[in-house]
Amino acid sequence: MSAALIALDWGTSSLRGWLIDGDGTILDRRAGGPGILAVTGNDFAGAHRSFVSGWPSLPSIASGMIGSKQGWLEAPYVNCPGGFVDLSPGLRATPDNALRIVPGFAWQVPGLAPDVMRGEETQIFGALDADDASGLFILPGTHSKWARVASGRIVSFATYMTGEIFAVLRQHSILGRLMASDAMPDLNAAAFEAGAEVGLNHGDDLLHRLFEVRALGLFERLPATDSPSYLSGLLIGAEIAAALHREAAASPILIGARPLCAAYHRVLAAQGIAARIADEDVTPRGLWRIARAAGMIA
Amino acid sequence: MSAALIALDWGTSSLRGWLIDGDGTILDRRAGGPGILAVTGNDFAGAHRSFVSGWPSLPSIASGMIGSKQGWLEAPYVNCPGGFVDLSPGLRATPDNALRIVPGFAWQVPGLAPDVMRGEETQIFGALDADDASGLFILPGTHSKWARVASGRIVSFATYMTGEIFAVLRQHSILGRLMASDAMPDLNAAAFEAGAEVGLNHGDDLLHRLFEVRALGLFERLPATDSPSYLSGLLIGAEIAAALHREAAASPILIGARPLCAAYHRVLAAQGIAARIADEDVTPRGLWRIARAAGMIA
Repeated sequence: MSAALIALDWGTSSLRGWLIDGDGTILDRRAGGPGILAVTGNDFAGAHRSFVSGWPSLPSIASGMIGSKQGWLEAPYVNCPGGFVDLSPGLRATPDNALRIVPGFAWQVPGLAPDVMRGEETQIFGALDADDASGLFILPGTHSKWARVASGRIVSFATYMTGEIFAVLRQHSILGRLMASDAMPDLNAAAFEAGAEVGLNHGDDLLHRLFEVRALGLFERLPATDSPSYLSGLLIGAEIAAALHREAAASPILIGARPLCAAYHRVLAAQGIAARIADEDVTPRGLWRIARAAGMIA
Repeated sequence: MSAALIALDWGTSSLRGWLIDGDGTILDRRAGGPGILAVTGNDFAGAHRSFVSGWPSLPSIASGMIGSKQGWLEAPYVNCPGGFVDLSPGLRATPDNALRIVPGFAWQVPGLAPDVMRGEETQIFGALDADDASGLFILPGTHSKWARVASGRIVSFATYMTGEIFAVLRQHSILGRLMASDAMPDLNAAAFEAGAEVGLNHGDDLLHRLFEVRALGLFERLPATDSPSYLSGLLIGAEIAAALHREAAASPILIGARPLCAAYHRVLAAQGIAARIADEDVTPRGLWRIARAAGMIA
């Protein structure tokens, strides 16, 4: 079949694109475009034209922070529960009509604090085995998401600041000053697992356990090269403990960068939970499903 | 009585000093000296001479980070349990013999991660009602300490990274980008208490609850001017919940800067715990007790 859709993943720090046919098969792919923070003079139209140059003129769809207040055009959050069909009314066309932008989801329940996602909904819909699949989806990262899907609809989710806390502690706190270098060394599996065990069992004591990273270093019980792995394990363990307290996890699906998913997989396995890692084309597949539901694919 | 001791509190970012008589009465006080990071060319001897200039030549003692690896001379940690008498063998004289430096305490128990303090031991000994008093001492700050004292000896303690986490999140994370300005606005009592309640009840879910600060802001349920107060309450609440899980707190004593002690006092009071805030001369009083026990006062 011939190309039917241009799909873009346009985030804070990266832009990737796919040329997709009417059945969802990927015909071509591009990466390395400018994230929204790197678009000079807010010329999103120009950045978009340049990135898709050479591809046929086709219906185009994008998800990610491009739809945030800081992006090209704000696509206000749609309230969940919702499936990909429910995103159609929330799609926003850019002023040049070149692109439709996927809204994020908000989770709002009276009396509780709200939560939000933008981009992850597309990955989740792309990871569904079928349009009406159910399951628990875990998206590790700067702001990790744990989302419950029932019959193809995201019914609830929670965000954990795990990745960002790791980054700010590593770069700006006394814990980072003890660490070996600015570069992230290879994960030390033993140190990671030792940290994860503490995080899993003492997540209610995180403010203290974080200081242990320093104290263990002072007494040379944790080498400087291993402390990033230990800290990563500690935070991921605490996230997983908190999330499992909120959600029973039978066979969750992990979505994201391979090494990070592998780290979560390892901690979950130690808890007796067999997670599956989704393939890396969940974003174009999700965009294709959303576009098809919105009638964008002829 | 005439002056018998010069006592210095020489920390990372400040240097204060007191001229004290043989009974522990403060005769004179100075502040505004350079913290160890501000001593140019590591000329600690020169910085010291300049700071005490005009005071009589007397036995002199200092506590704080001046005794760390980054200070004038490392005074290795003494293992607790220990009282001020137990610090005497650990005092280290500077090369010019002008000053004796108080070591910090380490808490080390086989099979558990260690913990350390440096400077806080002096404040605690200064806050004792009597040389052999007992109690729980709370020192809020960048690295908050909760220390158990029995018969004048520090028997155990734990550090919480509360203040540093607040600072790095405010300055370097997405939470800070939502906040009103770089200056710390006045504490909003209602926002602080709302955050503290979440921290107290959901400290095992901190990585998620931190993201709520952003989500509440996105939906304008938490004004940008109030979010630092909410974040502060959330972290302090989580620290207090974790510490109370470790330690029964009957009538703890708070040591530190007045506004911060008042904030902890408020959260503890809401838990039915009546804390007392120590006066602000605990450091010179502690240094005098340590010096006297070491035979430095004639």
